[in-house]
Amino acid sequence: MPKVTFYPDNQSIEVAAGENLLRAAMLAGVHVNASCGGAQTCGKCRVVVDEGKVSTLPSAKITPQEAADGYVLACSATVDEDVVVRVPVESRLGDKRVLARKRREKRHGRLLTAEELENIISNWPLEPAARRVKVELEPPSLSDPTADLERLKRGLAATGFKPVAVGPRALSTLPRALREHDWSVSAILVEEGGGHRLVSVAPAGARSLGVAVDIGTTTIAAELVDIENGGVIARAGDYNAQVSCGEDVISRIVYSGKGDNLKRLQRLAVETVNGLIEELMVEAGTRADEIVDVATAGNTAMTHLFLGVDPRNIRQEPYVPAFRQAPPVKAGDLGLAVPPGVAVRTAPCPASYVGGDIVVGALAAGLCKTDKLTLYVDVGTNGEMVLGNAEWLLSCSCSAGPAFEGGAIKHGMRAASGAIEQLRINQDTFEPMILTIGGRRAKGICGSGLIDAVAEMFLTGVIDGRGKLNRDLTTERIREDDGQAAYVLVRAEDSATGYDIVLTEADLDNLIRTKAAVHAGILTLLESMKLTPDDVEEIIIAGGFGHYLELDKAVAIGLLPEIPFERVKFLGNGSLLGARLMLLSKRATSDAADLASRMTYLELSTDASFMDRYVAALFLPHTDMEAFPSVASLLGRTANGQAGE
Amino acid sequence: MPKVTFYPDNQSIEVAAGENLLRAAMLAGVHVNASCGGAQTCGKCRVVVDEGKVSTLPSAKITPQEAADGYVLACSATVDEDVVVRVPVESRLGDKRVLARKRREKRHGRLLTAEELENIISNWPLEPAARRVKVELEPPSLSDPTADLERLKRGLAATGFKPVAVGPRALSTLPRALREHDWSVSAILVEEGGGHRLVSVAPAGARSLGVAVDIGTTTIAAELVDIENGGVIARAGDYNAQVSCGEDVISRIVYSGKGDNLKRLQRLAVETVNGLIEELMVEAGTRADEIVDVATAGNTAMTHLFLGVDPRNIRQEPYVPAFRQAPPVKAGDLGLAVPPGVAVRTAPCPASYVGGDIVVGALAAGLCKTDKLTLYVDVGTNGEMVLGNAEWLLSCSCSAGPAFEGGAIKHGMRAASGAIEQLRINQDTFEPMILTIGGRRAKGICGSGLIDAVAEMFLTGVIDGRGKLNRDLTTERIREDDGQAAYVLVRAEDSATGYDIVLTEADLDNLIRTKAAVHAGILTLLESMKLTPDDVEEIIIAGGFGHYLELDKAVAIGLLPEIPFERVKFLGNGSLLGARLMLLSKRATSDAADLASRMTYLELSTDASFMDRYVAALFLPHTDMEAFPSVASLLGRTANGQAGE
Repeated sequence: MPKVTFYPDNQSIEVAAGENLLRAAMLAGVHVNASCGGAQTCGKCRVVVDEGKVSTLPSAKITPQEAADGYVLACSATVDEDVVVRVPVESRLGDKRVLARKRREKRHGRLLTAEELENIISNWPLEPAARRVKVELEPPSLSDPTADLERLKRGLAATGFKPVAVGPRALSTLPRALREHDWSVSAILVEEGGGHRLVSVAPAGARSLGVAVDIGTTTIAAELVDIENGGVIARAGDYNAQVSCGEDVISRIVYSGKGDNLKRLQRLAVETVNGLIEELMVEAGTRADEIVDVATAGNTAMTHLFLGVDPRNIRQEPYVPAFRQAPPVKAGDLGLAVPPGVAVRTAPCPASYVGGDIVVGALAAGLCKTDKLTLYVDVGTNGEMVLGNAEWLLSCSCSAGPAFEGGAIKHGMRAASGAIEQLRINQDTFEPMILTIGGRRAKGICGSGLIDAVAEMFLTGVIDGRGKLNRDLTTERIREDDGQAAYVLVRAEDSATGYDIVLTEADLDNLIRTKAAVHAGILTLLESMKLTPDDVEEIIIAGGFGHYLELDKAVAIGLLPEIPFERVKFLGNGSLLGARLMLLSKRATSDAADLASRMTYLELSTDASFMDRYVAALFLPHTDMEAFPSVASLLGRTANGQAGE
Repeated sequence: MPKVTFYPDNQSIEVAAGENLLRAAMLAGVHVNASCGGAQTCGKCRVVVDEGKVSTLPSAKITPQEAADGYVLACSATVDEDVVVRVPVESRLGDKRVLARKRREKRHGRLLTAEELENIISNWPLEPAARRVKVELEPPSLSDPTADLERLKRGLAATGFKPVAVGPRALSTLPRALREHDWSVSAILVEEGGGHRLVSVAPAGARSLGVAVDIGTTTIAAELVDIENGGVIARAGDYNAQVSCGEDVISRIVYSGKGDNLKRLQRLAVETVNGLIEELMVEAGTRADEIVDVATAGNTAMTHLFLGVDPRNIRQEPYVPAFRQAPPVKAGDLGLAVPPGVAVRTAPCPASYVGGDIVVGALAAGLCKTDKLTLYVDVGTNGEMVLGNAEWLLSCSCSAGPAFEGGAIKHGMRAASGAIEQLRINQDTFEPMILTIGGRRAKGICGSGLIDAVAEMFLTGVIDGRGKLNRDLTTERIREDDGQAAYVLVRAEDSATGYDIVLTEADLDNLIRTKAAVHAGILTLLESMKLTPDDVEEIIIAGGFGHYLELDKAVAIGLLPEIPFERVKFLGNGSLLGARLMLLSKRATSDAADLASRMTYLELSTDASFMDRYVAALFLPHTDMEAFPSVASLLGRTANGQAGE
C-alpha cells in the first residue's frame, strides 16, 4: 500500500492504491481546506508534491508554472506510490492567522474490502436458486405439431428435469421466445414444491442475472449480480417513493389503512425498484430479460407493503404480522420490470419490528455460525439490533427516525453522489474540510457525514453537549438560517445547489434523539442478558451511511458505546448484502429462515428501562461521561488547548 | 308419464309431468296456431280440454264462460295427468279454409334427463380437487405473537396437512379473513405440486361451490355447482363479448395480433364470465367468496385468449398451439370475480382446432370408456367431432361458422329466454307454430329453432333444396325484407322486439353452408377409417342449440347423415357438462388429460375429399338423395299431397 507523508505535520498514512489525496489527508488527520467536496472547483486544497508522483488532471486553478513546481489540487489527485506532500499555509488556514492545533484520529471504519466480502460470501456454497438448463428442441412440423409447452417439457425431461411446472406468465411469453431463439434456448428453472418451475426462456447464451434489493423505509438500494459467478455488475439506490406518504413505518401503516392507499404504497415501492432496475440495466448495458431471480430484504412493514399485504396488525397489540416467511411472488404479480415468471423472494420477518433486513444482515454478519458474542446493529429509519451467536439470538427495535438516512434533516440526503460523507472542522478556524461521494459539488449530507459533522462540531466546541451552537465563536460559519441558528457546511458558491448547505439546531436535535434511541436500545438489549458493552466480542455496524463510518466519531457522539475499536466492523448495507446471499446460495436462504425462526424479540416500547436510558442518552456523548473515557479525555485535551497525542 | 290425446287428429303422446300443452301438441305432430311463442299474448292456441284436467292460469283471451267450457290457451297449460284435448278448427287453420294435411314425426332429441345425467356423472368418483379443512386457531397474544400465516400452517399441520403453500393473493386476504371469522375457519386447499396450496380462508360453515364454464367462440355458459354433493345450483349464459372483435376463431386470432388486442380479448372474455358469475350469485343468493374452484372448457384459440396467451401460431402452418395442458391459473391473475387464490383450470387442448370443449365433452359422452364405435359431434361456431372408443380416438374440425349459435343470422340468437327453439309450419296454411325458451314473446331464433325452421320450410315447400324461397306460394309469410326475400317467423305485433322476426335467404344460405361443413366433416372422418355412417354404434350430439334438438329435422336438412335414431343422443352443452365433471372429480380431470393425449387429429383444411364432400352437401338434404331415403320418402309423400302415415 502506498504511503503518504504530509508536511509540515509530519504525519504518514498508508492508503489503498488509487486513493484520493484529499481523503488520505483526512485519514491522516491533516487539515486541508476543501469546500467543494472534491469537485475541483474551489481551488482551496492546493498542495505541493515534494517526493514521488501523484496522478492528476490539469486544472484551471493551477498555473502551468505551479504545476511544474509540484502543485496539485489534493481533491483531484490519486496516490499510486509513496509520496511526500507539503500543505502550504494558505491551504491549512486560509486567510486566518492562528496557531495551528492538531487533533488526529486515524481510527475509522471503512466498508469491507473485496477480500473481506469474499470471505463472507464464501461461507455459503455458490448454489443459486435459479438455474439455467440448455435445451435444443426439434422445431415443430406438420408431422410433429406438439404444442410449444409440451415440446419444451419433453426436451427438459430428456435432460433429467421432470416434472416441470409452468406458470401462466412464463407460458404467455413461451411461443415467442422459442421462435425468437430458434428452438435453441436456456430454460430458467427454480425449485418449487419438490419439482421445478419454468421461470422464463432465454437465448442459449444468456447470462443468469439476479437483482438483490434492500427495501428500506427511506431508501431502496439494489445490486445486479451474476448469480453464476457471484460478481456484482452494477449498483443503484434511490429514495423509497413511499416517503411522500409518511416518513416512518407507523405513519405508512396508518396511511395504508385508508381507501386504496395500500395499493398505492405497493405501487410506489415497485416503481422505485423498477427505476433502480432500469438504472442497473443501463449501467450494465444489458436487458431485463437476462434477469432470472430477485431477492429482497426489508423490515416487516416494508415487506408487507411491497407485497401488498395489509400491515395494520403490525401496530396493534399483540403486534402480529401477516406472515413470517412470505411465499415467493411472481414478478408479474408485483409489476416488477423483469420477466414476469421470475420469483421474487423476500427475506423472513421474525417479528413485527424486526424484519428481513435484519435477518439477512445478521446472516451476512455470521451470527448464525459464530461462537463469539456478537452485536449486530443496523441504523436505518428504525434502529434494529441483534445480540447473540450460533446458540441464541435476541433482537430489539427502536424508532430511531430517518436522520442518519438524511430524513428530517434540512439538507440531509441518502448516501449518493454529491453527498458529504466525510468532514473535518479545523480546531482553530472552524472551517470545514469536506469530501463528497463521487467528488462532486455537495448537494447535501448523508449519514456518515452527519456523524462526522456532529462529532467534529462537538469536539471543536462549535456545539455543546445539548447540540446548541456556540454563538460566541468568531466564525462566519455560524449564522441564522431562516430564523434558526445553523452551521454552514458548504457555502452557496461551492455547493451544487446554489445555496448554502447548513446543519441547523433542529437537525442537531433530531440527530441527538436518533443516536440516543440506538444507544439506549443497545444497552437495554445487553442489560436484559445481564451483559455490558465490554462483554461483546464483536460489533457489526450496518446501514447505508456512505463508504466510511468513522467509529471514533460514532462513539464521540454516543451512538455506539465505548468499546475497543478492533472489535468493530462496518458492514455497510447488510440488508443488501444479505439479499445478495439469497441470490447466490439456497443454503443462505434456508439459513436465513432458520435464523428468523430462532430469533427472540425483546419489546422495547413497553420497557421502562429503555425509556430511562433514552433520556440519559439525549446528550453528547452521554449524561454519564464515565462511560465514555476516551471522549472525555479528548475533550479535556482540546479544552485545555493542548496539541493532540 | 301422463298421456295427452289430441282430437280431431286422434294423436296420443306421453310427456313428462308438468310438460307444456303446446309443446305436447308439437311433439305429437299436431298443429296448433301459436305466434307468440308461449307468452299468452296472441290467444291463437285455444284448445278445449274434454277429459282430465290441466293446470293453467286465467287469461284475458279466455272468457269465464269459455273457461267453464274447458277452453285454455295451450301455451299456458301444463299437463300433470292423462288428458284428452280438442283443437278447434280456428286454432288449426286460422282464417284459412283449406284441407288439413298432416305430417307427423315424433322422433326428437331432448336433453338428458336428470337420471341420465346422474348416470354420466356417477362414472367418476365424487372427489373434488378443492377441499375444505376446518381449523380452530388459538387467537394471537403478546405471549404468542406468531404471524397469521405460520399460525394457520401450524393449525393445518395438526390436522395432517403439511406442507401447505400459500400464494400471494391468498396471503393478502388472510389477516382479515382470520379475524372476521374469529380464528375458526375453513381452509380451502387444492393439491398442487405434491403438496397442498391454500386457496382461501372461508367461514367454518361455508359451502364449497365451483363454477363450470364453457367458453364458446359465440356464447359462454356457466353453472354454479356444489362440489361437495354435485348439485347444480344455478345456470347462466351470455354472448362472448369478444364477438365484437370477430365472429370466428380465425378473425379473433388475426385481431389479437395487433397492438394491445390480445389483452383486450382476454379482458372481454373475463368480463363476460364475470357477468355470468354475478348472475349465478344473484340466482343462488350467495356470495363469490363461497367459490373454491373454477373449471373451464373451450376450443384451443378461446383457451389461449382466455389465458392471454398469444394464439398466432394456431393459424400458421404447422398449426402449433402454445400448450396442450395449460397450468392452473389463479383467478386473481385473470381478473375473475372470485377469491383471487382460486385455481382456474382449463380443459386440455389436443390440437390447434380440437380443443378442451371437445375433450371434456367426449369425456362426458363416455368415449374414453366405451367399446362401441362412437361419434361425438359438437356443433358450435366450429364443427368438431371425435370418432372412436376406449381403444382409439380420431378428431377433426371444420369451420362451420356461428349460424347454429345465432351468429350471422339476421334474427339469430343464442339459446336464451325468448329464443324460438321449436317450430312447425302448417303444410296447408304455411303458418308457423312456435315455442320459445321460457314461453316468452319471441326475441329471435336459436340453433334448434333454426334447424326446425329450415327443415319445416324445406319439407313444406316454402324453400327449395338450394334454400330459395318459393315466391309462388299463397302466403303473406313470404315477403321482401329490406330488399331480401324472407319468411316471417313472428309478426311484429306478436314479437318481443316490436318488429317482424324473419329468416332471410342470406340466413338460409349461411345455414346450408354450416350444415354442409359439419356433414362433410363427419363423412370425411368416417371415410378416413374406411367406415360408413352405418358402422357408427352411437352418435352423441352436443351444442348449445336449446333444450330440444329434433333429430329427424337435423337429418332432414342433412346436418347429420341418416342413421337409426335410437343410436343418437343429444347431450346438450357437452363442454359445460365436462367442465362440471372437472369440478367434481380429480379422476375426470386426469381422464381428460389422458383422452387429450390419445387423440389423433385429422387436418381437414388440406383434405381434398373434405372439400368435395362439402360442395356436395350444399343442398337440402344433400345432392346425393340416395343417402337420405327417409327424407326422400317424406318429400315424395308430401309432394304427392298424401296424408301422413
